[in-house]
Amino acid sequence: MNTFGEKFRFTTFGESHGKALGCIVDGVPAGLKIDEEFIQKEMNRRKPGTNKYATPRKEDDKVEILSGVFEGLSTGTPICMVIFNENQRSKDYSNIKNIFRPGHADFTYFYKYGLRDYRGGGRSSARETAARVAAGAIAKILLKEINIQVQSGICEIDGIKAEKYDFSQVSSSQIYALDSQKEDLQKQAILSAKKTHNSVGGVALINVKNTPIGLGEPLYHKLDAQIANAMMSINAVKAVEIGDGIEASKIKGYDNNDQIRSDGFKTNHSGGILGGISNGDDINVKVYFKATPSVFLDQDSVNTNNEEINCKLKGRHDPCVAVRGSVVAEAMMTLVLADMLLLNMSTKIENIKKVYKK
Amino acid sequence: MNTFGEKFRFTTFGESHGKALGCIVDGVPAGLKIDEEFIQKEMNRRKPGTNKYATPRKEDDKVEILSGVFEGLSTGTPICMVIFNENQRSKDYSNIKNIFRPGHADFTYFYKYGLRDYRGGGRSSARETAARVAAGAIAKILLKEINIQVQSGICEIDGIKAEKYDFSQVSSSQIYALDSQKEDLQKQAILSAKKTHNSVGGVALINVKNTPIGLGEPLYHKLDAQIANAMMSINAVKAVEIGDGIEASKIKGYDNNDQIRSDGFKTNHSGGILGGISNGDDINVKVYFKATPSVFLDQDSVNTNNEEINCKLKGRHDPCVAVRGSVVAEAMMTLVLADMLLLNMSTKIENIKKVYKK
Amino acid sequence: MNTFGEKFRFTTFGESHGKALGCIVDGVPAGLKIDEEFIQKEMNRRKPGTNKYATPRKEDDKVEILSGVFEGLSTGTPICMVIFNENQRSKDYSNIKNIFRPGHADFTYFYKYGLRDYRGGGRSSARETAARVAAGAIAKILLKEINIQVQSGICEIDGIKAEKYDFSQVSSSQIYALDSQKEDLQKQAILSAKKTHNSVGGVALINVKNTPIGLGEPLYHKLDAQIANAMMSINAVKAVEIGDGIEASKIKGYDNNDQIRSDGFKTNHSGGILGGISNGDDINVKVYFKATPSVFLDQDSVNTNNEEINCKLKGRHDPCVAVRGSVVAEAMMTLVLADMLLLNMSTKIENIKKVYKK
Amino acid sequence: MNTFGEKFRFTTFGESHGKALGCIVDGVPAGLKIDEEFIQKEMNRRKPGTNKYATPRKEDDKVEILSGVFEGLSTGTPICMVIFNENQRSKDYSNIKNIFRPGHADFTYFYKYGLRDYRGGGRSSARETAARVAAGAIAKILLKEINIQVQSGICEIDGIKAEKYDFSQVSSSQIYALDSQKEDLQKQAILSAKKTHNSVGGVALINVKNTPIGLGEPLYHKLDAQIANAMMSINAVKAVEIGDGIEASKIKGYDNNDQIRSDGFKTNHSGGILGGISNGDDINVKVYFKATPSVFLDQDSVNTNNEEINCKLKGRHDPCVAVRGSVVAEAMMTLVLADMLLLNMSTKIENIKKVYKK
Repeated sequence: MNTFGEKFRFTTFGESHGKALGCIVDGVPAGLKIDEEFIQKEMNRRKPGTNKYATPRKEDDKVEILSGVFEGLSTGTPICMVIFNENQRSKDYSNIKNIFRPGHADFTYFYKYGLRDYRGGGRSSARETAARVAAGAIAKILLKEINIQVQSGICEIDGIKAEKYDFSQVSSSQIYALDSQKEDLQKQAILSAKKTHNSVGGVALINVKNTPIGLGEPLYHKLDAQIANAMMSINAVKAVEIGDGIEASKIKGYDNNDQIRSDGFKTNHSGGILGGISNGDDINVKVYFKATPSVFLDQDSVNTNNEEINCKLKGRHDPCVAVRGSVVAEAMMTLVLADMLLLNMSTKIENIKKVYKK
Repeated sequence: MNTFGEKFRFTTFGESHGKALGCIVDGVPAGLKIDEEFIQKEMNRRKPGTNKYATPRKEDDKVEILSGVFEGLSTGTPICMVIFNENQRSKDYSNIKNIFRPGHADFTYFYKYGLRDYRGGGRSSARETAARVAAGAIAKILLKEINIQVQSGICEIDGIKAEKYDFSQVSSSQIYALDSQKEDLQKQAILSAKKTHNSVGGVALINVKNTPIGLGEPLYHKLDAQIANAMMSINAVKAVEIGDGIEASKIKGYDNNDQIRSDGFKTNHSGGILGGISNGDDINVKVYFKATPSVFLDQDSVNTNNEEINCKLKGRHDPCVAVRGSVVAEAMMTLVLADMLLLNMSTKIENIKKVYKK
Repeated sequence: MNTFGEKFRFTTFGESHGKALGCIVDGVPAGLKIDEEFIQKEMNRRKPGTNKYATPRKEDDKVEILSGVFEGLSTGTPICMVIFNENQRSKDYSNIKNIFRPGHADFTYFYKYGLRDYRGGGRSSARETAARVAAGAIAKILLKEINIQVQSGICEIDGIKAEKYDFSQVSSSQIYALDSQKEDLQKQAILSAKKTHNSVGGVALINVKNTPIGLGEPLYHKLDAQIANAMMSINAVKAVEIGDGIEASKIKGYDNNDQIRSDGFKTNHSGGILGGISNGDDINVKVYFKATPSVFLDQDSVNTNNEEINCKLKGRHDPCVAVRGSVVAEAMMTLVLADMLLLNMSTKIENIKKVYKK
Repeated sequence: MNTFGEKFRFTTFGESHGKALGCIVDGVPAGLKIDEEFIQKEMNRRKPGTNKYATPRKEDDKVEILSGVFEGLSTGTPICMVIFNENQRSKDYSNIKNIFRPGHADFTYFYKYGLRDYRGGGRSSARETAARVAAGAIAKILLKEINIQVQSGICEIDGIKAEKYDFSQVSSSQIYALDSQKEDLQKQAILSAKKTHNSVGGVALINVKNTPIGLGEPLYHKLDAQIANAMMSINAVKAVEIGDGIEASKIKGYDNNDQIRSDGFKTNHSGGILGGISNGDDINVKVYFKATPSVFLDQDSVNTNNEEINCKLKGRHDPCVAVRGSVVAEAMMTLVLADMLLLNMSTKIENIKKVYKK
C-alpha cells in the first residue's frame, strides 16, 4: 500500500530519521533522457532550510539513481532513487517517545501497528514527500516529451488570498506566491505565526497546460478522482477542489456549464475535466493544507499508557507546510498524468494498430 | 478500470439505456446474512421518480442477485447484482446523437473512445450509481456486524446552508435535509430553478460513527485519500472536504489541533482521520455537487463534426443532483470503509495469530 | 480475487447451480466489431452434451450481452455477458450436501469459508469456465485485428500421445484430437473409463502464431509466468510446460539454445518466449489435466462432522475433462495475450509519441 | 510490473552490473522480530562463488536494511533492502554489446525496449533473484510465527533423478541434493558439462509443511496458480508441476483421488491443494530449470543490425542454474504463502469479529 499508480507507478520507502528514503519508479518507458541535474533541481524546490519561511533543518536531499538508467537513458526497468538521511537529530525526539503530539499521526500509528518509530514521525513525516518529488521529476521528463506542462504556486496563506495567478513569478518568490501584491502580507502571516510559536495553513494551485483530450479512465479511475486521491495523500491536506470546486455547488447549472465553440470551450469552470476525462482545457486544482500541527505551545495530550500529560514540543518545523507542499502537489499531479497517459493508450483500436501494425 | 477497492471490491457495468446495469461485489466475507429487503430499501432511497424535487423518470431499480448467496448467506464468492432497465425513452436522445451537451461528458467520451453510446449519456450517466448503492448495501451489512454506522444528509442547496446537522430527520425529508429550519428554503430553491429550466447545486455531509482506530493504509491508500477518490468518482462532484476541510487552512495550528484527554479527543477538527488513519472519532466528510448540467435553456455547443450549433435540451432530469447523490456518497463511504476494514486485518502480527493460531 | 488481467481484465461470477453465471470484461478497446455469433460459436466448442465423450448434461450456454456494445461496436466500457443456468438438477446433489467428494474442492471450500454451496460444486465447478470462454471470445476478436492466431488441440489422453500435431483436423474431431492416427485409441480410452465408472486425464497443446516480439512485462508479469498462472487456474490442471518444458531440463545447454539467423530462430525449444518476453516465434504450451475426480466407485471420505463415510457418487460428468478443458485453455491463452498486448504499448517512448503526437 | 503479491508484496529493482539491486517489501505486519543474521544466512545459500559446482564469480550479497525496521522490529512500513554490487567485470561484456546470446533475453529486451543494458544481461540477469531471497527471508520470518515450514532441494540433474527425498541432508550437500546416493552422479554430470564448456538442467522440489487449510483465493488467485506464476517467473524455469503433476494426467481418476479419513487424507497425489486452496497436507511442487544458456561453444546468432555472426561467449557462469535456483524457488514459495496467509484472513465473518470485536 506504498505504491501509487497503475501503469506508471511508484513505491516509496523510508522514515524521517532512518538511514535513507527513496522510491522505485516502475513503468517508465524506455528511451527517455534522464537528466539527473533536472531531478536535483526539482528536489531543491522542495528541500528545507533555504529561507526563514521554512524549517531551518538542513537536508541536501541529494538523489542517487541506483538502477533503471543506462548511458543516460531509461531502459524500461525500475528506476530506484535513494536519498540518504544526513541531518537527523533523533535526540530531539526522545522526549516525545511515549507521547502523542496533537494533530499528528502518532496516535493512529501507535494503535494501528502496536508500535511506532517515534523519531520525527517516522514514516508519517512529510520528509517522505522528498521521494515523491524525485518520482515526479521522472514523470515530468515523460510529460515534456509530449509537451504537457505542469506548474504550481501558492494562492492563499492564513486566509490571505491571491487576487491574480501569475505562475511566472513563483520561482522568484521565497513562498512560491502567485500574487506578488499579496506576497508580503502572506510572508508576514508566516513570520508572525512563527514568532508566536504557532503555525498557519495555506492553499496551493496546480495548473496543467496542453493536456491531451481523453486522459482519465472511467469509472473508478477518473482523472479528477485520482487527482483527489493523490492530493489528499499528501501530509496536512484536508480539501481538494477541481476547477471552480465549491463555487460550482453554489451557482446555477446554466452559469456553471462551459459552453462550446468550434475553437474550444468558452469558459473553464470545470477545471478541464468532464466525466472524469480531460477535455483539453487547462486543468486547475486547489489543494488546502491545514496549519502545521507542530506548534510550540502547551497542549493537552496523553501518553502511550493513556495517561494525561502536558505536551510542549521543541524542534524545527515549517511554520506553513503549504509552501513546500505545493511542490509536492505539483509532483503528484505530474505522476497522476503520467499514469493516465499510459493507461489511455489502448482505449481505441486505432491506437493499438498504430503501435503494432507493420 | 471499472473496479473500486482492493480486498472488498466491486466492479460495475451498464449504460443508462442499455439492457441492464449492475455490479459484481468481490471479497465479501462468507457467513453474512444477505437481507434482500434491506438492499432494496437502500436502492429506494436513491431511486428517481418519488417526488417533485427529483426527476419524474420512473425506475423500479429492482435488484436481482445472480450469485454469491446460498440459503440467505454470503458464500465468499462474487455477488453479482443486476438491475434491468425499464423506463428508457431512448428516443428522447436521438436529437442529441451528434451533439455535445455542455457540462456533460459527451465531448470527452467521444474524443477518448472515437464513438459513444449517446442514449442518456450511456455509461457516463448517473444511472450507473444505482449499482454503487447496491454494492454499498452489501458493505453496510458487513459494517453493521462490527457496529460501524454510516449516515448522510444534505447540508446545503443553492448556497443555503444548514445550521444544524440532525441526521434523525433526514429520512422523513424529501430532500434529505439535515436542518428542518432550512428545508423549506432549500426546497424553494430547487423548485424555482426547475421552473426556470435551470438547476442548482448542493452539498452532502457524510458521517460515520464507531469506526475502529486504525483504518487506512498509509501511504498511498490513506483513508482520507480513498474517501476523496471515492467521492470525486461520483457524477457532478467537484470538491471534497475532510473534517473542517477548507476552514482548517485558514486557522492557526494551535486552534486546529485536536488535543487529547484519556477519554478521547477534545475536539474533532480533523474529521476523525490523522495521518490517513482513523482515530476512532466521528468521520465527517463534505461532498460538493455542481448544479445538474442538463438545463433546458439555449446553449452554445458543437456537433461531432465540430460545427457550431445551438443546443436546447429536452428530457427529464433532477433539478438538483446532490439530493439523490447524497445516498450515493453514503454508499461510497460504506464501500471504502469495508475495504479498509479487511485491509487492516493483517497490520499486526498479533491479529494474524488470532486468526491462525489453534 | 475473481478478476484476471491488468489492462484487459475480466471478472467472473456465478455458481454451477445458481441463477446465472457470467463475466465483466473491462479494458476492451473501443471500436471493435463484436460479432455475437462468433462468441456463441466459441461457447459451443466448450459446451457439454454434444457427444458421448462428454457429459450428457445439456446446457445451451447462450450468452447474452448486457452492456458495453452499441450498434455492434465495443464502446470502451465494460462488457457484461451473462449465461442463465437452465438444466440444473440440484437434487442430484442433495445426497452429497454434507460430504466431501475425494479429489474435489468440497473439503477446502467448506473449511475456508465455513459453509458452501454444495450444488454441483457451486463456484468450484468447471461450469464457471463457460464465462472464461465468453471473455476469451472478446479477446480473440481483438487479437484478430493484428493477426494473432491462437489454436488448441488434444495431444494426449490417458497416456496415449499424439505423434503429430495437426491443428487443421481438431475442429472435426469429437475429442479435439491433434493426431487422427491416435484419435481412435484415445476415444476408446475415454469410453472404457466411462464404462468402468472411472475417468482419464489428458493433455492440451496451445499454439499461438504471429505474436509480436515484445509481449510480456518483466519481471513479475512475464508472459510465461502469466500463462502458467492462467493455465493452472483452470480446474483439474496440475502441470504446465512452456516450449520443450521438462525436456529442456534434461538436455545440454548447447542443444536447448535456439540459435539465430537473420531470418529468425533456427529451432524453437523455448516455445517462443525468452526472458519472459515473446520472441516472435510460435508460442507452444502444454497443459496437463488430471482425470476427472468424479468417479462412480466406492471411495472413503468424511462428512462435515469429520465422520468417516462411504462415498458413492451419482451424476453426469465428463469422463475426460481435458477435452473441453482444451477450449478453456485456449481462451485463457487468448486473454493473457490481449492483456499483454495492451500492457506493452507504453514500453517505448516512440510508441507513446505515435499515439499522442499530432 | 516489478511487483509480486497483493497484500504481502515486494518490488525489486536493479541490474546485474548497476550500482545496486534490492527490493521493497510492503505489507509486512508490525511486530515481527527482523533477524538480520537470518536474512544474511538465507542470502548465503544462494550466493555464488562458494564451490566448483557454481560460478566462480564472487559476490558478498551483503544485505543492508534501509527502512521499515525500528529497534529490531518490523514497524508495518515498507522494508527496503539493498545489495550493492561489487565484483562486476563489466568489461567481460563489451564484446557482446551488440550481439544476442542464444537462449538469453538479449534479443527480446532489445526489441521490446529499443535499447538494453548489455552488461551481464542487465535486468534479465539471474542476479536479480538475490533480491527475491532477501524478500523471501522476511516472508519466512512471518511464516515461522505460525509454524509453516518451507524447504527445498534438488531432485534431478541432467536427467539423473533422486530416488528418495531427504531434506535433512540438503544443507550439507554442495548441490543441495535430496538423495545422497545420487549426489555423486549428479555432481559428475555438472563437472563434465563444465569441462566441455556446456551446461546441464535440473529440477528442484519445494515442500511445505503445516500449511493451514484455506490458503488460496479462488478463482483467479488460486494457490497453485500463484505458485506456478511465481516459479515460472524465475530465470530458466520451463515447467511447473503441482503434486503428482504430469503423472496425474496419466492415471485413472480413482487412483489419483486422495481419499479421506477422519485423521486426514490417505494419500497426497494432489500436492496439498484442492480447487486452488490448501487442504492442510504437504504442498509439493517441482520446478524444472533448463540448462544454463551461457555455453562457451560456437553458436550462430545475429547482432543488433540483424547481421549473422558467430557467437563464442566467455565469462563465468553456473554450469547448472537449478542448484542455486532451488533457493530462489523456495523463496518464491515463501512469498506466495505469506501473501495468501494475509489475503485469507478476511474470508469468514468470524475472523473479522475476532480481530475487531472488543
